[in-house]
Amino acid sequence: MLDIIIKNANIITMDDSRPLIRGGCIGIDGGRIAFVSAGSEAPDATAARVIDADGNIVLPGLINAHAHIAMCVMRGYADDMRLNEWLFERIFPAEARLTEPAVLAGVRLGIAEMLASGTTSFSDMYFFEPKAAQIVLETGIRANLCNGVLALDESYDFERDRSVTELYELLDGLHNAGNGRLKADAAIHAEYTSPPWVWRRMHALAEKHGLITQLHLSETKKETDECLSRHGGRSPVRAFCDEGVFDTPVLAAHGVWLTDEDMLLLAEKGASVAHCPVSNLKLASGIARTQRMLECGVNVCLGTDGCASNNSHDLFEELKLAALLAKGSSLDPTAVPAYRALRMATVNGARAQGRENEVGMLKAGFEADLIMLDTHRPHMRPLYDPISTAVYSARGGDVVLTMVQGRVLYENGEFTTLDVDKAIRDAEELAMPLVLGK
Amino acid sequence: MLDIIIKNANIITMDDSRPLIRGGCIGIDGGRIAFVSAGSEAPDATAARVIDADGNIVLPGLINAHAHIAMCVMRGYADDMRLNEWLFERIFPAEARLTEPAVLAGVRLGIAEMLASGTTSFSDMYFFEPKAAQIVLETGIRANLCNGVLALDESYDFERDRSVTELYELLDGLHNAGNGRLKADAAIHAEYTSPPWVWRRMHALAEKHGLITQLHLSETKKETDECLSRHGGRSPVRAFCDEGVFDTPVLAAHGVWLTDEDMLLLAEKGASVAHCPVSNLKLASGIARTQRMLECGVNVCLGTDGCASNNSHDLFEELKLAALLAKGSSLDPTAVPAYRALRMATVNGARAQGRENEVGMLKAGFEADLIMLDTHRPHMRPLYDPISTAVYSARGGDVVLTMVQGRVLYENGEFTTLDVDKAIRDAEELAMPLVLGK
Repeated sequence: MLDIIIKNANIITMDDSRPLIRGGCIGIDGGRIAFVSAGSEAPDATAARVIDADGNIVLPGLINAHAHIAMCVMRGYADDMRLNEWLFERIFPAEARLTEPAVLAGVRLGIAEMLASGTTSFSDMYFFEPKAAQIVLETGIRANLCNGVLALDESYDFERDRSVTELYELLDGLHNAGNGRLKADAAIHAEYTSPPWVWRRMHALAEKHGLITQLHLSETKKETDECLSRHGGRSPVRAFCDEGVFDTPVLAAHGVWLTDEDMLLLAEKGASVAHCPVSNLKLASGIARTQRMLECGVNVCLGTDGCASNNSHDLFEELKLAALLAKGSSLDPTAVPAYRALRMATVNGARAQGRENEVGMLKAGFEADLIMLDTHRPHMRPLYDPISTAVYSARGGDVVLTMVQGRVLYENGEFTTLDVDKAIRDAEELAMPLVLGK
Repeated sequence: MLDIIIKNANIITMDDSRPLIRGGCIGIDGGRIAFVSAGSEAPDATAARVIDADGNIVLPGLINAHAHIAMCVMRGYADDMRLNEWLFERIFPAEARLTEPAVLAGVRLGIAEMLASGTTSFSDMYFFEPKAAQIVLETGIRANLCNGVLALDESYDFERDRSVTELYELLDGLHNAGNGRLKADAAIHAEYTSPPWVWRRMHALAEKHGLITQLHLSETKKETDECLSRHGGRSPVRAFCDEGVFDTPVLAAHGVWLTDEDMLLLAEKGASVAHCPVSNLKLASGIARTQRMLECGVNVCLGTDGCASNNSHDLFEELKLAALLAKGSSLDPTAVPAYRALRMATVNGARAQGRENEVGMLKAGFEADLIMLDTHRPHMRPLYDPISTAVYSARGGDVVLTMVQGRVLYENGEFTTLDVDKAIRDAEELAMPLVLGK
């Protein structure tokens, strides 16, 4: 007997051999997908629980490839400001005041938000990550966690850097915990915040432990221009590349100011770029050329960035905006069609996390990370094409079921592994006064 | 005794003298706002119904200033296509097959969607509008309806044009019906679809009956370029202006390719522009320069356009995107801040509909068109600034109450004036086969 059968579903598998199955059925057992069948009834299978999807859309859980999840405690604290004021007068001073309980309250609130809006896995760069890891394990979500090195000081000591010691802590028993749900990533905050010798040290760690390296890349024009002068006419991509950083897998966030040459190099190296359209617009960093990246063969995935520059973790919003923005900015309405955008949020995200044989598709043998969208709402109908509906009509609030590794974590407004009212209360009681400096 | 009191609300009034009242109270009587008070209890007032908002955000109902509401029956039918294929191979042939019952099914489904996502008033341009008017009256929403003249044929007869006869039908007993909820607008489809003599005739009707004129304006570069050759170097704005079209109030949709000179002329004439950011991106028309329009003094409001190019009527999405896109496209993160974006969706929309003394603000004497956003959800917290939360964090699905003229039309997923399951069923049974040509 299986654990769960979902029947009568419009299944978006993201498996290119049959991307869409109408009125299909999914069997789940031991945390994995046992079968995906075209018939509405399982072939001779019974299950402890049978869920009648009643025509709802079932698709792989979305993957948020760039977040600073705890920053949701600053959601709405600083909007509509110039980057320097935003960062130096608001965000950095507030972060300096954040205590461990305040950050962890943010992690819990952010996970609640992600689960409720259909995100089943996220890549995060922040601090207190080993403690955040415990919350990831406890709440059942999937995550790649890191703390990016910042080495702005002459007296910088790599081995004593909190970013590095947190990585060691993660590697000591947390990496691959929760049946592989949790992974530690290596991380370089950005080109402009550390010197090349630090990148080489971090790369050596990534190589030694077989880790992905997360970093911020070519987010703003200023950053890119300054790199050219600082590094003898080399772009951030070229500068990192020359130090070997791309010789192990890299997940680079933003990529707004990448040149064609940069893109070809990233593609050659098999690097991933987490496109963060909402954040890039809100901070006025610009509009990333995702269509060109895809043409160059770059693995483009999607991220929300932190909620202080978004102000949401709703990946359905990024999904639609990624499809729209590619069209509007290129004046080509065929750019980044719906299915391609959905690949960014699923298959490509899985690859960026080193999980391409684990999640991102609904097919037998893959882990059962999936979500269900309610189609019984006026904005979801008529239902011509579930892929179009998922990308262009659905919102995070249409998610009625979120499952990770076969375990239901969210269903019809209820969370099975966390107390959302307490998460909200903690964020406002523990973090908000610190953010406000009160 | 009042009809309704809403207490313990975070009230966004949109009244510049006190835009935000925390923990406030609103009294509603006879369809109008009796008072908006700073205290959480009403001053000596009792009501037939007291709603405890429990910290939820209450704001004016959003105004969708450009829709083709019945087109929601084509939601998801044609995406990611070049404009000409989309229009001539998909949309126009499908529209030619639509019967009156199919269109009216779309009107009802679209109204359900609007009410559930916080839109209380819309400006519409389509056909079968006198019949659509009956549904507007019956469902309790507010609308300005028109059918835009298209005169592409040599043998065009103004008085027999269905657009014109539908306007006469609306003027005969429907204009200002439902205590003013329903208005007929004059309408010219666009510069490129009719000759100047037709504009003069329509303008004369607008003048005679005191109507607003809806039209499409400078949506695509092609349209604008062709106008320059067709009308001796004059832009669509200048061409319309020279025929007197702007001497009565105009609500122009899109305005993507307006020049500074166009904007100054529109401002001088007191015309409104309905910015439709999702549609403009999806059809790759471009990105309207809203910040510049506002600087020029143009009344910029927001619209979804038809669902075939969106694919949603969620005005919260347009609201956030309007704020984001102005920043990202200008590389200025202070462009179109949250409150200014919210003005577009409320106060400016009301003015565009000729309802600036009627709706768009929560203040004593105005009609009670308001909505409530649930703040008890993880993505809505912490709550630093309700205006930021409404613009940057909320989605249409966070609306838990929608009221028009003091009447609750939608509350916690339930509609009081329509059967949403039937609306969905009718759209799929009556319209979908016609759209598909089956």
